[in-house]
Amino acid sequence: MSVMKVGVAGLGTVGAGVVELLVRNQAIVAARAGREIEVVAVSARDRGKDRGLDLGGVRWYDDALELARDPDVEVVVELIGGAEGTARALVLAAIGAGKQVVTANKALLAIHGTEIGGLAEAAGVQLAFEAAVAGGIPVIKALREGLAGNRISKVVGILNGTCNYILSKMRERGADFAEVLAEAQKLGYAEADPSFDVDGVDAAHKLAILAALAFGRPVAFHDVHIEGIRRISALDISFANELGYRIKLLGIARETPAGVSARVHPCLVPVGHPIARVEGVFNAVVAVGDAVGQIMLEGRGAGAGPTASAVVADLIDIARGRATPVWGAAAEALSAQPSVAIGALKGAYYLRLMVVDRPGVIADVTAALRDSAVSLGAMLQHERAPGEAVPVVLVTHETTEEQMRAALDRIAILDTVLEEPALIRIELG
Amino acid sequence: MSVMKVGVAGLGTVGAGVVELLVRNQAIVAARAGREIEVVAVSARDRGKDRGLDLGGVRWYDDALELARDPDVEVVVELIGGAEGTARALVLAAIGAGKQVVTANKALLAIHGTEIGGLAEAAGVQLAFEAAVAGGIPVIKALREGLAGNRISKVVGILNGTCNYILSKMRERGADFAEVLAEAQKLGYAEADPSFDVDGVDAAHKLAILAALAFGRPVAFHDVHIEGIRRISALDISFANELGYRIKLLGIARETPAGVSARVHPCLVPVGHPIARVEGVFNAVVAVGDAVGQIMLEGRGAGAGPTASAVVADLIDIARGRATPVWGAAAEALSAQPSVAIGALKGAYYLRLMVVDRPGVIADVTAALRDSAVSLGAMLQHERAPGEAVPVVLVTHETTEEQMRAALDRIAILDTVLEEPALIRIELG
Repeated sequence: MSVMKVGVAGLGTVGAGVVELLVRNQAIVAARAGREIEVVAVSARDRGKDRGLDLGGVRWYDDALELARDPDVEVVVELIGGAEGTARALVLAAIGAGKQVVTANKALLAIHGTEIGGLAEAAGVQLAFEAAVAGGIPVIKALREGLAGNRISKVVGILNGTCNYILSKMRERGADFAEVLAEAQKLGYAEADPSFDVDGVDAAHKLAILAALAFGRPVAFHDVHIEGIRRISALDISFANELGYRIKLLGIARETPAGVSARVHPCLVPVGHPIARVEGVFNAVVAVGDAVGQIMLEGRGAGAGPTASAVVADLIDIARGRATPVWGAAAEALSAQPSVAIGALKGAYYLRLMVVDRPGVIADVTAALRDSAVSLGAMLQHERAPGEAVPVVLVTHETTEEQMRAALDRIAILDTVLEEPALIRIELG
Repeated sequence: MSVMKVGVAGLGTVGAGVVELLVRNQAIVAARAGREIEVVAVSARDRGKDRGLDLGGVRWYDDALELARDPDVEVVVELIGGAEGTARALVLAAIGAGKQVVTANKALLAIHGTEIGGLAEAAGVQLAFEAAVAGGIPVIKALREGLAGNRISKVVGILNGTCNYILSKMRERGADFAEVLAEAQKLGYAEADPSFDVDGVDAAHKLAILAALAFGRPVAFHDVHIEGIRRISALDISFANELGYRIKLLGIARETPAGVSARVHPCLVPVGHPIARVEGVFNAVVAVGDAVGQIMLEGRGAGAGPTASAVVADLIDIARGRATPVWGAAAEALSAQPSVAIGALKGAYYLRLMVVDRPGVIADVTAALRDSAVSLGAMLQHERAPGEAVPVVLVTHETTEEQMRAALDRIAILDTVLEEPALIRIELG
């Protein structure tokens, strides 16, 4: 068969990794793909930059959109990133030109995925995005193909390596968020502006994609409830540990009778659950299906190698002619299940207050919980410092988010409660 | 598109599970497959047996080979099992009739996989076997497609749920093999004749398949070194625990400069390795690729639901026209790497001896190790019983299997060493 000619737009760490991997494992890739796969064109901003790649004989486009118009390019690999601008324009142009597309762009898929999926379907081209979620772990393939016979009830993931690294280090060293973030930035595990990662937006993009695939419905990023990890303290990690939990930033999507619930926030996870032990920059995805039961996939969620592994797997699928609808089923076969809001959530909560250590304080707090119909499972208070602020931890039984919010409002007006309470949901218990 | 008509041969737990899942999740399966998938014919021995299935309108064949000849059947699902006999004849007949084949038959693939793969390739039909390894975990898809861009250096798996269940229970309860096996048999987790499982043969079939896919070479079951778990004692599990290890039956395949090494045997695995925590009937597969790094997939490795999940995923692939060569690449593109024998293995060892408790015994044993150039990392001896037998545990540094065997020969002739020594390889350290 003829060589499959590929154009790569974006030559950052991942783009360079893809070009390098296709050369390094050329024979393996050709055997698996049934064809040679060759990068014939690239596009990036800085031609002069040394990327350690031999790009002799490869056409260079300053304008990525020209790459999409190159008649010699059969597959466009979009590694520019971002939901808008060049990345989006390139993907639309490539589909418009009838080319196959591979992308690692979770923001684009989370926000414009329904539109883009519809265009790809209408044009009869593949839009592959294994690299968009959990790096080299073949989780898109697992949900879209490997578990396709199941009714999936739940998907849970550690989807952001930066957050998991920060939380792991905070626990190991008893250090606070700001200190570990600064270190992660020095090591290149966190961006100069870390908000995309630490505020949970990146994880929410990925969860929106997983939820769409798991439940067979259009991607709904704006319905994902998002909280990040900035307010997690060393104190809470230490209390969680004492109670037999790890604090993890999880993406959780569930099918409920009322619709699909999707949320990203810090969670207390029992240490006995396998996902609690996924540490550092590793990602993991747990899926529960009616036939398969619970499965978990774990590996590196980012970096040049893992991401290139996913992009090349997509290229091999395209070379073999293995085609799958963007969202697992044709657009018309997707379900119209509504999203449910966070207020409807039921679960147990960890609540940590800073209270003035004097008689009657605990009685006031527990009365506020009782008045909101929240029942208490455990309480921890170690320090004594009469007249000063000490931490008190309360663990609730199952309650609703709405009742918990009502209790917090009642607690907020107590003058013995100092600082804003720390409230963390307990999951997978 | 037209309905995809399926014939299922074998209506045991798994076969019944496949028929049931296709009915239960009919709409989900049709959306994912892009076509309705319908069972139109079945074959099993006992027509009268109540399987809880509505088989009205489904053609029944007493002879499975007739099912392969039914012109209305597009895909034959072989769930009879066994490397020879009806299962093999059926698969060959189905391929010969130009039908697509789905099978869960690891023995057939491990032993006749090269021949059958060649026939399927020549006939231009799919032979899908996700259910043959690790039940519902999509590990065949991960290795053959998801990680296809990688040079894989190592695959390690807990591939037999019966063995993992027995070893987990032995540790939890401090019980011996025979006792836990009897219990597993009562619970249906072990067969009346358990040898296929507990002697490591089933795990070796699966490892042979994984190794072929990982390293892109013809399946080589007869080159797999196999040891089972019958000789593992509660004593060794307890010592392993004390040393910071779990005892697991692992399948391990590695690419070495001299060729592919593949082996199934009990191992000491550090408790810190994620595979050490995979307990009970769960399976797990770890793969290491040059781009992706280490990934792990974990889930239920057997049972009607998980196995049906894998079979239905294969049917959906076929319905979508997603085709992959049986062994990941065309037969002519497979490598001719040789297998390497167990003697060439390098690693560390756990050695437990029963020795007469009297002066000079340890000196004799350590001299035997020294004379075989095996160096010692740790030694444990708790009990004292002058003049009687006590256990002594020795942990070696890295050595070769040949040197270790030579040391065992030297130890065997010491009259202070009673019973046959327990020798267990230490892995993933």
